Amino acid sequence: METALVFKVLYIVAIVAEAMTAALAAGRREMDWVGVCLLGSVTALGGGSVRDVLLGRHPLSWIEHPSYLLITSGAALATVVIARYMHHLRYLFLFLDAVGLVVFTIIGCNVAMGLGMPVVIVIASGLITGCVGGVLRDVLCADVPLLFRAELYGTVSIITGGLYVGGAQLGVSHDLLMVGVMLIGLGLRLLALHYGWRMPKFVYTETLH
Amino acid sequence: METALVFKVLYIVAIVAEAMTAALAAGRREMDWVGVCLLGSVTALGGGSVRDVLLGRHPLSWIEHPSYLLITSGAALATVVIARYMHHLRYLFLFLDAVGLVVFTIIGCNVAMGLGMPVVIVIASGLITGCVGGVLRDVLCADVPLLFRAELYGTVSIITGGLYVGGAQLGVSHDLLMVGVMLIGLGLRLLALHYGWRMPKFVYTETLH
Amino acid sequence: METALVFKVLYIVAIVAEAMTAALAAGRREMDWVGVCLLGSVTALGGGSVRDVLLGRHPLSWIEHPSYLLITSGAALATVVIARYMHHLRYLFLFLDAVGLVVFTIIGCNVAMGLGMPVVIVIASGLITGCVGGVLRDVLCADVPLLFRAELYGTVSIITGGLYVGGAQLGVSHDLLMVGVMLIGLGLRLLALHYGWRMPKFVYTETLH
Repeated sequence: METALVFKVLYIVAIVAEAMTAALAAGRREMDWVGVCLLGSVTALGGGSVRDVLLGRHPLSWIEHPSYLLITSGAALATVVIARYMHHLRYLFLFLDAVGLVVFTIIGCNVAMGLGMPVVIVIASGLITGCVGGVLRDVLCADVPLLFRAELYGTVSIITGGLYVGGAQLGVSHDLLMVGVMLIGLGLRLLALHYGWRMPKFVYTETLH
Repeated sequence: METALVFKVLYIVAIVAEAMTAALAAGRREMDWVGVCLLGSVTALGGGSVRDVLLGRHPLSWIEHPSYLLITSGAALATVVIARYMHHLRYLFLFLDAVGLVVFTIIGCNVAMGLGMPVVIVIASGLITGCVGGVLRDVLCADVPLLFRAELYGTVSIITGGLYVGGAQLGVSHDLLMVGVMLIGLGLRLLALHYGWRMPKFVYTETLH
Repeated sequence: METALVFKVLYIVAIVAEAMTAALAAGRREMDWVGVCLLGSVTALGGGSVRDVLLGRHPLSWIEHPSYLLITSGAALATVVIARYMHHLRYLFLFLDAVGLVVFTIIGCNVAMGLGMPVVIVIASGLITGCVGGVLRDVLCADVPLLFRAELYGTVSIITGGLYVGGAQLGVSHDLLMVGVMLIGLGLRLLALHYGWRMPKFVYTETLH
């Protein structure tokens, strides 16, 4: 019960953090206030929505809990007001963004495990939940998604999901597993950010056509 | 019965108008005729399709009524022929596009109300139905969607949806409500176009990373 | 039974070919290895997934057969290793890509026919299955999709689907129909590639706004 509550709080923190970083991306594109709210909401809630649509699982979380839409829109709008100070909060935001990635990933794994899915799909569900919101944000900003290029974003999600499903199959107690996996995933992401770790790139310059 | 018929006619007008403006966007990108048909159909039918997929509501309208696909493809192709004269029809098209926005919004609200959804989701359903087709068009043209930046497009949809759901809860008769909300939404959009009204922009130039 | 097996093999060949060509597109954008796997999988499996989501048909093929995800990721990664030699395999790849288009189209038509859909939807289902994967690839690379502009890609899919559904309604035996339609679709695509056949373009330079 208590872990569930902690996780609910972390989920709210995660959607707020995602909506706020998306609002900054909207500001870089000079979007209007409605655009800021929409981009924030799509980014924060898009990963879970795509996961549920692919799994055929209804109702979607924000349709069941419309307050989520109000929270993400409010967080995005608040960003417009406090943006001038956010620059001092740079590290806080990178930290919260990392929390969001790991929390979303674990939630996505949990959903697929609850449906009795095989391991590959559990990890894919975590990855979709953790990363697709950011992909939608980048596509709507007409950018090539950061996911495909940035520091270990997808890799952290896959490792987090793999450890989580592995631990669950080994019978590690649920609370211990959630806390342990969260700390490992978060640590890996923060180390990757700090040291600029990246996956090797694939560079190809010819065209087939 | 009669309002339903009027609304059906307005819906056909709306998908034709959306398909034709999308065809012009395709022409600006030098797409071929098949691309013109596809972009027109995705733009005209995409908002309702995304709404139904998110709500888990099947079959989608164009799967139930395949003639819609023929209408949007035909309208898009006809645009190729008459494009040279459309420039004289500029105001007619802006008007029909505004009709489409308001009609799609009200249809989206109706669908969600019919499913017993709460107010926030009813308004979101109207917004998705009214605006997502244009977002898909812009993404497929590799542009930042106009929705996030243009004159009150999303705002008109939200206000239209809000008045519609508010009126319904106050017990305003259905026919009166539809006509009244349509006129208000349409008027607001046309005034916004005429006077160039815009929502304030959020401009942010720093990067977090 | 034997045709089903041949078709299963062709499907695997098709998703491998699509994942590999998507991996090359990822390399042109300097994506990292995780990005290469993800773009390859989305491209190879995205068309069928979008079709099933629109038709409300669950579970999706890769959720039922998670090995498909491993095959597409493996094919994309293998491409990173062998990319330097692929240039010699240029014609093989264009051929396999054409096989993929035709095989995906026929599978999509089959799915919709199995659901008792009308002709227009059967052809649309083939087109979505055959072409949407490539559209997702191009959108994720922030390009205007090739489908809207390239040599008869969509046209070949529509003609293949039309012949297939027409033959089925005329009572042509299933095996003969599959082989015949595949050869015609493949031949048309290869001729279009060889002679640079294109649909006429629609060029429009004015703006409505």
